[in-house]
Amino acid sequence: MASSGDEIETLIATMARLPGLGPRSARRIVLHLIRKRAGQMAQLAGLMGHVAENARECLVCGNVTGADICPICEDPARATGEICVVTDVADLWAMERGRAFRGRYHVLGGSLSALDEIGPEDLRIPQLLDRIAEENIAEVILALSATVEGQTTAHYIAEALAPTGVVVTGLAQGVPIGGELDYLDDGTIAAALRARRKL
Amino acid sequence: MASSGDEIETLIATMARLPGLGPRSARRIVLHLIRKRAGQMAQLAGLMGHVAENARECLVCGNVTGADICPICEDPARATGEICVVTDVADLWAMERGRAFRGRYHVLGGSLSALDEIGPEDLRIPQLLDRIAEENIAEVILALSATVEGQTTAHYIAEALAPTGVVVTGLAQGVPIGGELDYLDDGTIAAALRARRKL
Repeated sequence: MASSGDEIETLIATMARLPGLGPRSARRIVLHLIRKRAGQMAQLAGLMGHVAENARECLVCGNVTGADICPICEDPARATGEICVVTDVADLWAMERGRAFRGRYHVLGGSLSALDEIGPEDLRIPQLLDRIAEENIAEVILALSATVEGQTTAHYIAEALAPTGVVVTGLAQGVPIGGELDYLDDGTIAAALRARRKL
Repeated sequence: MASSGDEIETLIATMARLPGLGPRSARRIVLHLIRKRAGQMAQLAGLMGHVAENARECLVCGNVTGADICPICEDPARATGEICVVTDVADLWAMERGRAFRGRYHVLGGSLSALDEIGPEDLRIPQLLDRIAEENIAEVILALSATVEGQTTAHYIAEALAPTGVVVTGLAQGVPIGGELDYLDDGTIAAALRARRKL
């Protein structure tokens, strides 16, 4: 299809490669943007160019940000002595939406995987050890996925942190809020039963 | 949430307002783009800026394009004497994907609607009449939606074209290819029965 000129076709093809989009949704978005080309489209293009130029990893925690240090690491109120270790930035954002954690983060950038040859040096684990030596950290919370790779990574980090004397905790496993037992997998029910609490 | 700086948040919020996207898919796309900020993101920003600046309506048919005249109207092979009238550019693109029509188009830009006060002057209908007077047109195909507004518009255009002597046709109505009778609405079945063909 070259019914609207090469540039518009290329834009649609590029948009269609974004995660969660396809040719149909990309066409719909591009048509919408072309209708608002003077306003929303020019603004979005400018913003995207800016972020492409300025986005980088926070030198302390690995969060993505437009400055050398991210707003969370910059915020003195968040120097609570707790570090929450997450696999990637999407998980950091998810934790922030929960509004339950008020300390700082450490983004690993992946999970340990013998298969994919991802070792501790690839995962910002040395930087985590440095931070514990330098900052005044009392507790490290491992908010890693409840998958085999996530739990392998959690186990490795817990071992590596043992000599430092810092308290290492993990997220509780159990029934999600609003979760119906009938729809839960067996592993979750078993974990929730093992970790049962007195009411 | 301002965990990654204002610019990234604004980009996510702007993306989330695009049709078919929401906060979750916008975050996913922005994170993906930030990972590829030097390549795909900078390229997409540049393309989008270019299209925002250059996209306009084809002066002949109303298709969106990066030049004054769209590639279809520029193509001499498509001067077949047939004009296909469509409601909007999305419909033009849909027709092109079908690869069945080899003539030129005329984009109305909407449907007639007494309720929304959209009259013939708002719909590039006068321009259609001009084209029929100027170009050597034998047939006008009304590829309009099978809705009340689409059919009202088709009826109006057919009346307006009657004095010109040009042949006016409409798309056939019937069972879609691959359509199962069991899932079709009653109106479509009735229309397909009325328009039954000898095999």
